[in-house]
Amino acid sequence: MPLDFTIIGYMAGTLTTFASLPQLIKSLKTKDMSGISPYFVISFTTGLFLWLIYGLLRNDYPIIIFNIISLIFWIPILYISLRDEFKNKSYIKNKIKKC
Amino acid sequence: MPLDFTIIGYMAGTLTTFASLPQLIKSLKTKDMSGISPYFVISFTTGLFLWLIYGLLRNDYPIIIFNIISLIFWIPILYISLRDEFKNKSYIKNKIKKC
Repeated sequence: MPLDFTIIGYMAGTLTTFASLPQLIKSLKTKDMSGISPYFVISFTTGLFLWLIYGLLRNDYPIIIFNIISLIFWIPILYISLRDEFKNKSYIKNKIKKC
Repeated sequence: MPLDFTIIGYMAGTLTTFASLPQLIKSLKTKDMSGISPYFVISFTTGLFLWLIYGLLRNDYPIIIFNIISLIFWIPILYISLRDEFKNKSYIKNKIKKC
């Protein structure tokens, strides 16, 4: 494989991985998850975890490293997202109970 | 490569790709991009585009297909996100002008 191809792959991986850093910073700062689908966060984080297993089984270091970094960014986002989801659900339940 | 590994790779790719569908539906329905970092959306979509180029250069069909589908989901999200960003910036500019 020519070197140019590999460089493009590494650039692509770096962009899709580190794209999540400003999202993590925003989510931690604002705790505002209103625009983010919890189904997206759950499926995406599960997918990243499967990519990590795939990388480990194949001994593919770029896949392993990119997905460990991505998981470091997405696990806290998943935590905030799920906490919000449960909070909203119990809030609605309490509202219904009061009616 | 044993078949099991490949299946895990396809499951991982399917999850990380189709995770974006509920996000697209939510963004189109609510137009609420307040919790999503525009830097995340820009970098992530650019990264997906580079993955597509990488796949095309390597003739790697799974990479090509997964990234075309992802781009179909993320280009409209990018559009809504950037439109919101410019709207907010011009709103703040007008507010400052009025002061």
